[in-house]
Amino acid sequence: MADLQWESIDKKAVDTVRVLAADAVEKVGNGHPGTAMSLAPAAYLLFQKVMRRDPSDSTWIGRDRFILSVGHSSLTQYIQFYLGGYGLELEDLEALRTWGSKTPGHPEYGHTDGIEITTGPLGQGLASSVGFAYASRFERGLLDPDAAPGTSPFDHFVYVIAGDGDMQEGVTSEAASLAGHQQLGNLIAIYDSNQISIEDDTNIAFTEDVHKRFLAYDWDVQVVDWKKTGQYVEDVAELHDAIERAKGVTDKPSLIILKTIIAWPSPTKQGSGKSHGSALGKDEIAGLKRFLEFDPEKSFDVDPAVLEHTRKAVERGQAQHAEWNEQLAVWAEANPEKKALLDRMLAGELPEGLEDALPVFEPGKDVSTRAASGKVINAIAEVLPEFWGGSADLAESNLTTIASGKSFVPTEWSTHEWSGDPYGRVLHFGIREHAMGAILNGIVLHGNTRPFGGTFLIFSDYMRPAVRLAALMKAPATYVWTHDSVALGEDGPTHQPIEQLTALRAIPDFSVVRPADANETAYAWLTILQRFSGPAGIALSRQNLPVFERGDGDATGETFASAKNVAKGAYVLAEAPGGTPDVIFIATGSEVQIAVEAREVLRGEGINARVVSAPSLEWFDEQSDEYKESVLPKAVKARVSIEAGIALGWQGIVGDAGRSVSIEHFGASADYKTLFEKFGMTTDAAVAAAKDSLAAL
Amino acid sequence: MADLQWESIDKKAVDTVRVLAADAVEKVGNGHPGTAMSLAPAAYLLFQKVMRRDPSDSTWIGRDRFILSVGHSSLTQYIQFYLGGYGLELEDLEALRTWGSKTPGHPEYGHTDGIEITTGPLGQGLASSVGFAYASRFERGLLDPDAAPGTSPFDHFVYVIAGDGDMQEGVTSEAASLAGHQQLGNLIAIYDSNQISIEDDTNIAFTEDVHKRFLAYDWDVQVVDWKKTGQYVEDVAELHDAIERAKGVTDKPSLIILKTIIAWPSPTKQGSGKSHGSALGKDEIAGLKRFLEFDPEKSFDVDPAVLEHTRKAVERGQAQHAEWNEQLAVWAEANPEKKALLDRMLAGELPEGLEDALPVFEPGKDVSTRAASGKVINAIAEVLPEFWGGSADLAESNLTTIASGKSFVPTEWSTHEWSGDPYGRVLHFGIREHAMGAILNGIVLHGNTRPFGGTFLIFSDYMRPAVRLAALMKAPATYVWTHDSVALGEDGPTHQPIEQLTALRAIPDFSVVRPADANETAYAWLTILQRFSGPAGIALSRQNLPVFERGDGDATGETFASAKNVAKGAYVLAEAPGGTPDVIFIATGSEVQIAVEAREVLRGEGINARVVSAPSLEWFDEQSDEYKESVLPKAVKARVSIEAGIALGWQGIVGDAGRSVSIEHFGASADYKTLFEKFGMTTDAAVAAAKDSLAAL
Repeated sequence: MADLQWESIDKKAVDTVRVLAADAVEKVGNGHPGTAMSLAPAAYLLFQKVMRRDPSDSTWIGRDRFILSVGHSSLTQYIQFYLGGYGLELEDLEALRTWGSKTPGHPEYGHTDGIEITTGPLGQGLASSVGFAYASRFERGLLDPDAAPGTSPFDHFVYVIAGDGDMQEGVTSEAASLAGHQQLGNLIAIYDSNQISIEDDTNIAFTEDVHKRFLAYDWDVQVVDWKKTGQYVEDVAELHDAIERAKGVTDKPSLIILKTIIAWPSPTKQGSGKSHGSALGKDEIAGLKRFLEFDPEKSFDVDPAVLEHTRKAVERGQAQHAEWNEQLAVWAEANPEKKALLDRMLAGELPEGLEDALPVFEPGKDVSTRAASGKVINAIAEVLPEFWGGSADLAESNLTTIASGKSFVPTEWSTHEWSGDPYGRVLHFGIREHAMGAILNGIVLHGNTRPFGGTFLIFSDYMRPAVRLAALMKAPATYVWTHDSVALGEDGPTHQPIEQLTALRAIPDFSVVRPADANETAYAWLTILQRFSGPAGIALSRQNLPVFERGDGDATGETFASAKNVAKGAYVLAEAPGGTPDVIFIATGSEVQIAVEAREVLRGEGINARVVSAPSLEWFDEQSDEYKESVLPKAVKARVSIEAGIALGWQGIVGDAGRSVSIEHFGASADYKTLFEKFGMTTDAAVAAAKDSLAAL
Repeated sequence: MADLQWESIDKKAVDTVRVLAADAVEKVGNGHPGTAMSLAPAAYLLFQKVMRRDPSDSTWIGRDRFILSVGHSSLTQYIQFYLGGYGLELEDLEALRTWGSKTPGHPEYGHTDGIEITTGPLGQGLASSVGFAYASRFERGLLDPDAAPGTSPFDHFVYVIAGDGDMQEGVTSEAASLAGHQQLGNLIAIYDSNQISIEDDTNIAFTEDVHKRFLAYDWDVQVVDWKKTGQYVEDVAELHDAIERAKGVTDKPSLIILKTIIAWPSPTKQGSGKSHGSALGKDEIAGLKRFLEFDPEKSFDVDPAVLEHTRKAVERGQAQHAEWNEQLAVWAEANPEKKALLDRMLAGELPEGLEDALPVFEPGKDVSTRAASGKVINAIAEVLPEFWGGSADLAESNLTTIASGKSFVPTEWSTHEWSGDPYGRVLHFGIREHAMGAILNGIVLHGNTRPFGGTFLIFSDYMRPAVRLAALMKAPATYVWTHDSVALGEDGPTHQPIEQLTALRAIPDFSVVRPADANETAYAWLTILQRFSGPAGIALSRQNLPVFERGDGDATGETFASAKNVAKGAYVLAEAPGGTPDVIFIATGSEVQIAVEAREVLRGEGINARVVSAPSLEWFDEQSDEYKESVLPKAVKARVSIEAGIALGWQGIVGDAGRSVSIEHFGASADYKTLFEKFGMTTDAAVAAAKDSLAAL
C-alpha cells in the first residue's frame, strides 16, 4: 500500500479549495458551495495523490478516469483542474456559471477540457462509470488479454464521487447491480454521505441502509467516518488507506462510504440544507475564512506557494505518461496487429471493406427490419472487432446477439444458453433499460469501442434521461429499438409506441433512423457507424416487410433508388409515374410499403405520386437546400406523410395542404393486421389522404 | 393465524388454471403461459383464500387491492377472475389477446372490470403498489384516524405479485426504499423468483441478493422455497403461513420470496425461457394435461365441480362486503362530517366555494408562476382536505409544500425542518422522480384523494414511463413541473428543458398546462381539479413574470381577457388594436409577455397583432370548432408562436406562412436574461417573425 505524503501545504491547499468554492458561488450569486467545501480533501487526495492523470493531455488513454456524479458540485472538479494545472485559471473560477465560461453550472463534456462526462442529472454519473469500467475491460480483452492483472497499459482505474441523490435514483440501483455482477474491480466510488439534500436532512425520505444494499449487489464496502469521534476530523490518511485497499480488491467494485459534514467548516451553515444550493453570504464566508486563517477581506486569494505545490501535478503526470508510453511501446512491439487496431480505433476510422461486408437482401422474400438488423450486426461484427452490444433482456426479440461472440460476463455466470467470458462481446443488461443507456454512455466516453444496446422502442421512455445526455454530449451510442409500432400486435398499448418516434426526434442532436426494408437497414447501420457523431436510435419492425427491388442509383422511371441513399436521410424511393409528381408520399419504416402500394392505386386513377422514404429526418435536415428541394420540391404542396404514430412532427413537412396518415391514440391488443386496418394505417387511407390533399390545393 | 382449508377440489382448480393458461396462449398463438402456470397456486390462494374482495363489486372501497406487477402474465389475473366470478367467462379466456376482448395482452385498467391498474412495463406495478398503500394510510387519516390498527373500515391490504423483471427495474428500487421508510405494514408483495426471463437463466445478468437488498430497505423478508427438498413441492400451506405472518407485521412492508419453477409441470419446457413468452405447442400441452390427469384431447375443459367450488367466492365476498357495510354504518353514525367528506370524495365532487378560495394576484407586481402555484396550492389545501402532495427533494424550488400540513412520514423520521406524522399531507419522495410518478399513479388508482408531485420540468424525462401509464389509464395525477425553460438560468443545459413540452404534448390523453401569469396559474389549478380526468402537468416559471391587468370577460379593446379563460386551453388575451388582427401571436407561459410587448411595438408600426395565450393545447383542442375559429381565424394566416423550446409541435398551428420563435438547440449556463437574449427569445425576434410571416402571405 502506497504511503501518503501529506504536509501542511496540502492542508493549506485543501482549505484554499474551500474558500475558492465559497468565493466563486458568492460572486455569481448562486450555485452549490457546501459539497465542494466538504469534499475538498477527498477530491484533492484523488487528484494530487491517487490518480494517474496527465494534466497536459486529457486524451491519454492510460489515464485513470474521474467521474463527478455529484455534478452540481462542479467546483469540486474545476478547482482541482485549476490547482492541478489542467488548463483552468483563477479567472475561470471567477467566471463560474456565466455565459461562455469554461466553468458552467454542471461539468460539460466537450466544453471544458478534461471533463470525462457531463453530469448533473443525478444517478447518471455513477451509472455511466459502470460503462467506463466495462469499456476498459473490453478494450483490454481486444488489445492485451493475456497480460497479468495490473500489468497492461490498458489497466486503469475509474474513480467516482457520488452523493445521496445518486444513491436514491433508480438508475444507480440498476447499474450497481450490474457492476457487482460483472466484478468490476477497477471501479472505485466514494459516496459522500453528508445526509443533506435540498429538503435538508435526508432522514425525511431516505433511511435505507446503503451499506447493506451495496453488499447485496456484491460490492466491497468500506466506511470512513470523519464524525466517529464526536468531533469532525478529516482523517485523510484513513480515506487514503481505504482507497488503496479498494485498489487491491480486484474482483469487486468498491464503495467507500465517506461520512462528511456538508459545508464544513462554515460557521453556521455547515451540516444544513442552507449550504447545499445557495451562496453562503458575506458574513458566513468571512467567518469561514477566519476559521481557516484566510484573510476575510480578500476573495479568490491563493497563496503562490500553494499553487506551486499543486501544479507539480503536471510534471508528475507527464512522468507517469512517459513511463506508460514506454510500457505501450513494449506492448506495441510485441503486438503489431493489435497496435494497428488501436491506431485505427484512436483515429476513429472504420476498417476498409466494411461496406462490402454488408449483407445484400434479395427482393421477393419478406424480412422484418429487426431480422435484417440481426444479420447486419453479425456481418459488421466479423470485420469490426470493437463492435459489441446486446440487449436489456430481449436478445431473441431485438436480434442483437453477435453469434460468434461470448457473453461479456465473468465465466462463472455462464448459463446453459450463454457462454460467459470477461472479454466477451455480447452484453446482457437484464431488465434495466435506463442503466443500459447510462452504461452505453460510459462505454462511448471511455473511448475506442462501438457499443450498441437493444430494447423495444416503447422502452426508450425508460432510457430517455441517458439518451438525452448522449445527445448533449454528442456521444455516438447506438440504440436498437425493435417492435417499432402498434404492429408489434398482441402485447397491446403498454408496449406499442405511438408518440415515441416524435418524442425522440424532439431531442436536439439525436438521430432517429427508421429503415423501410432490409437493405435500408444495412445502410442505416453503415451510416450510423460512419457518422461517429452523436447518438442514433434505429427503429425496427417486428413484422415482415417486403424487400424492395432497387436499382443502383437514384430513382428513375419505374426503377427504385438504391438503399445507399439512406445516408441522405430521405430520398426519392419511387419516382412519380411520368416523372412529375402531383402528390408526394413521405413515409418511414414499415409504412413505406403502404406509400408504394398507394402510388400504384393512384397511377390507375391518373394521379402521379412520388414516394419518398425518410429513414432519418435529422440526416435529411443536414443536406443541401438543393438536395432537399429535389426530394420535396416546394411547388408540390400535395403531400401525405405515413407513419404509424402521431402526426405531430409531420405537420411542418406536409404543410397546410398536406395530410398525415397517422395514429393519434393509444394502441390495442390484437394481431397487427387487424390493428393497421382498425387504425386506418392502410393503402386506402393513404390514397384518400392524397386525394384530400390534392383537393386542398 | 387463519387456518388454510385446502382440499382436493382446490388442487384440481389450481391445475385447471395451468391448463387454461396453456390453452389460451396456444389458441391465439402467442403470449406468456409459463408464469401463469407456475403462479397458479399463489394466485388461487390469494383470490380464493386470502383477499377480502367482492367479485360482484369492483368499486368497494374496503376491498384488498391486487396488483399484478408481472403484467405479461395477465392470464394469472384473468383466470382468477373467471374462476372467482368477477365477470369473465370461458369465452373471454378463449379470446385472449384479440381485438375487442376483455382479455388483452396485459391487464388494462378501465377496460376489464376489476383490474386495479394497467401493468406490463416492468417495475411499474410494484412501484405503484407503494402508492396504493400510501393512499390507504392517508385516507384512514382523513376519515378514521383514531381507530385501533386493523379495526377501521378503511383498513385493507395491498397484495402484489412481482417477478424478476420488477426486481431489476430501477423504479422498483426507488419505490421499495420509500416503502420501507414509510413502514407500510399493509403492503405484501410475493416475488415469483423463478430465475427465468427472456434471456433464460437470470444468472446471465442478475446475481444480486434480493433478500439482503430488501432487508436494507427495511422490509420484512420471508422465503418460501418450493424447490428446497430437491423435488418441486408446491407447499401452499407454507405460502399461506408466510402471508398470514406478513399480515401480522404492521410496521414494515413484506416481501415473500417464492421460489418457483416457471411453467411447472410442463414436461420439457418447465424451468426454461422457452415457456416464458411463447405458446408451448400441442405436444407439450398434451404432456402437461396427461401429467395433471386432464384429457389431452380437450381444450378449455373445466370440470363444473371446480367452477361451482370457486364461484363461491362471490357469496363469500358479498358476505364480507355486507359485514363491512355494517362496520361502515357504525363509523358513519359516529362521524357524520367525515361521512359527508367520504360521500363527496366518492362522488368525485369538489367542495363548494373552491373557486372563491383561489388567491387573486394584483397586477403591477412581478410573480413567478411557481410562486403563484405555491400560494394556490396552499389556498386549495384549506378547503380540499383530500388534496396532498410534495416534491422529489425540491420542495423549496417547486414550492409544493402545504404549509399547514405535516409530513407524511412516520413520526420518528421528523427532522429539524419537517414534522412527521403518518397521516401528514406533505409528501417527500427523495430524489426519486420515477417512483414519484408511479406512486402518484397508485394513489390516484386507489381512489378518493387528489395527489400532486413536483420536480423540475427537465426531470419529467425520468418520470416518463409512469406519466405515460397515467395517460393510458386516464388517471388524474398532477405533476408540478417548475423551472420550465432555459430561463432557469445558471444550472445549464442538463437542467434546461428544450424539447420537454413538445415531448409531453406528444403523449395521447395527457394535458400540458403552462400558465402565463399568476392568475392563469390559479385557474390552471382549478381546471385541473375540476376536470378529474387524465393526468396533467403544470409547467411553471422559475423567474418572475408580470401579472397582467385583466377584465372580467373576453378581451375587448385594450382590456385583457379574464384568466378564467384558461379552462378553454387557449384564448384571446389581448385583441388586435382596432379589433381585426393582421397577425396573431400564440404563446405560452413566460413567453406570453413577449407577445404582449411585441403587440405594442407592432402597433407603433401600424400592424395589428392579437395575442393568444395558450396554456393548454390539449384543452383547446377539445373546444368547439366555432370557438377555435374565433381564437385562430383561418383567414389570418400570419401567425407567430413563441415558446422557449422547440418549434416542432407548433408548425401545424402556425401553418405554412407562420413563424416560430423557438429554441432548437440545447441550453447553456448563464443568467436567464443573457440566455433569452443570446437565444433570440426577445420582443425584437417576435416582431421580426411577425413581419416575416406577414411577408410570406
